[in-house]
Amino acid sequence: MSPIETLVLDLGPRSYDIHVGAGLVSSAGEYVAPLIRHAPAIIITDRNVAGHHLAAFCNSMDAAGIATVVIELRPGEETKSFDRFEALVNSILDTGPERASTLIALGGGVIGDITGFAASVILRGIDFIQIPTTLLAQVDSSVGGKTGINTRHGKNLVGAFYQPRLVLADTEVLNTLPRREFLAGYAEIAKYGLLGDAEFFTWLEQNGASLIAGDPDTRRYAVAKSCRAKAAIIAEDEHENGRRALLNLGHTFGHALEAETGFGAGLLHGEAVAIGMVMAFDLSVHLGLCPAEDAARARRHLAAVDLPTGLDALPGQSWRAETLVAHMHHDKKVRNGKVTFILARGIGNAFIEHDVDLADVETLLAHTIAA
Amino acid sequence: MSPIETLVLDLGPRSYDIHVGAGLVSSAGEYVAPLIRHAPAIIITDRNVAGHHLAAFCNSMDAAGIATVVIELRPGEETKSFDRFEALVNSILDTGPERASTLIALGGGVIGDITGFAASVILRGIDFIQIPTTLLAQVDSSVGGKTGINTRHGKNLVGAFYQPRLVLADTEVLNTLPRREFLAGYAEIAKYGLLGDAEFFTWLEQNGASLIAGDPDTRRYAVAKSCRAKAAIIAEDEHENGRRALLNLGHTFGHALEAETGFGAGLLHGEAVAIGMVMAFDLSVHLGLCPAEDAARARRHLAAVDLPTGLDALPGQSWRAETLVAHMHHDKKVRNGKVTFILARGIGNAFIEHDVDLADVETLLAHTIAA
Repeated sequence: MSPIETLVLDLGPRSYDIHVGAGLVSSAGEYVAPLIRHAPAIIITDRNVAGHHLAAFCNSMDAAGIATVVIELRPGEETKSFDRFEALVNSILDTGPERASTLIALGGGVIGDITGFAASVILRGIDFIQIPTTLLAQVDSSVGGKTGINTRHGKNLVGAFYQPRLVLADTEVLNTLPRREFLAGYAEIAKYGLLGDAEFFTWLEQNGASLIAGDPDTRRYAVAKSCRAKAAIIAEDEHENGRRALLNLGHTFGHALEAETGFGAGLLHGEAVAIGMVMAFDLSVHLGLCPAEDAARARRHLAAVDLPTGLDALPGQSWRAETLVAHMHHDKKVRNGKVTFILARGIGNAFIEHDVDLADVETLLAHTIAA
Repeated sequence: MSPIETLVLDLGPRSYDIHVGAGLVSSAGEYVAPLIRHAPAIIITDRNVAGHHLAAFCNSMDAAGIATVVIELRPGEETKSFDRFEALVNSILDTGPERASTLIALGGGVIGDITGFAASVILRGIDFIQIPTTLLAQVDSSVGGKTGINTRHGKNLVGAFYQPRLVLADTEVLNTLPRREFLAGYAEIAKYGLLGDAEFFTWLEQNGASLIAGDPDTRRYAVAKSCRAKAAIIAEDEHENGRRALLNLGHTFGHALEAETGFGAGLLHGEAVAIGMVMAFDLSVHLGLCPAEDAARARRHLAAVDLPTGLDALPGQSWRAETLVAHMHHDKKVRNGKVTFILARGIGNAFIEHDVDLADVETLLAHTIAA
């Protein structure tokens, strides 16, 4: 059995551990037990995850002497609607929680986002623990305390900054993940290299294939490296008043693509981010900020691991540059009507730009669509 | 025109001013303008308050050069349902808010609670300002950052601790308040005397009648005194891990009475608190903790100003001690199945007791009901 790597997200009294390694779901009890102040622990999961991992998890909790109740949600992004959120909150209140109660999110990003948001509002805030079971959730959404739900206006426009008490990222559960979903998570791993760590990006160019093929050591290394990169940024800027926005590399473009495709299974979030990162590098080149070779290298690696890198990945879709730019105006990161972009001066050297002329963005998109 | 009294709720970077005095609604613009980072300011109010005060408020905002949009809600506690909350959040998102936007709650406790909760979740948190227009909201709910909505499980079981940026308590608007609502707010003023300030309680015994009759100086003094008392406690214990619970004097009993009467117009919150405070003192006497004379004095003053002090205030209602105790188990303040009570050793000397035997409470209630 491979070792467990532990890191800390340093937020003073709200600091928490992130453990990364194989087998953490079936040994979760020993990590979770010291944090449970009031039983039962309330597990939120979805039907798919429950089928694969719930028994092992609950056995481990039993072994640690922690009583549990389980709330099983329907899988899918629709679970993040306001109505489903209300139903979840009522289900949790049905169990009679106290302020010392703990919610445990066992699942992917949807489960983590909605569980964290529920924890933030129930009795004005109870504890929660993240046990992310997708690669995307392990390297991105489970760390840093962004929680939320969707409305007809867009994704995650309603939510809270609310930190978990613990994150357990079990790299073994990734074996049950469909390849396409694994790759979507890989896009966020690549993001950490592209935005701030050229050396890690080079490592990914060399080891990405074996990581994707299932090698446990490279998986643990990359997940821990990604969590560490994210934790360092969040320790500095929890509420995204500055540097945290770097984590949105590829996301302004990506969200517009997702909005246009209805946030459906046609384009996964990580896939949208992969295309969005390529666009962000292309925009940086277009603005004369970044060598063309770096943009080409970013695109080359993402394509090499089989991620989409352009709009041609969705052949059935018809795109309009104007509509995509309009979507960007609904982004949470809009300031005084201006859309914020994360641009790059090269691989590993991203920066925040509040002053991009949207005409440049539209030109680039029109050009990309026509190509 | 009488002067404005200003105090500060000290919470480090989240500190804010509370201004108390006559005419603050019609001069709101000058206080609000420096805090508006992104226009328009989004005003949340209800139809009743709008009829009395919206024009004066908006004129003042216009004069200060701040554009506004207004969202008018239906008056009443039903506005704090999950459905209405969702509708409010969507109405706010319709206006296209940014992270630098500000909500302004112009109204009573319901408007303040729901606006504050909306501010806490929209884009994961935007600014909000409290302009409480009822006495209850001025001396209690607008200060301290408790926000929330109701579910079928109870009141305020869903919400956030989320501080406003400013509170403007205009004592002049209290002139439009129905006498019964004013008195309900007075119960919370009396609470500050009863829980921690015997001298202030004596002052109320001497000045309560003139305050209720409309004297502006005693009103300003009592509102500012109440806000100061609350601010001091919250500066020490924002999230109610300890001392803040003192503010719940009368509330465990009061909530049970409200739950039993369906949170309707038959028993206002402040009226329930008045009866609840008398019960808390009676329980303290029953437990041999408090001189009977102090309980009698508390009851005497509340009755003198025409507040209800016992269950006979609701002649149509049939009460059962067992049912009331059952309601207490759904309180947010339950810890490991134990209900927390605020008891008193005398006027101005309340304390938190986690270990009350519910059999004693039931005995007292059965005795009261039979009387």
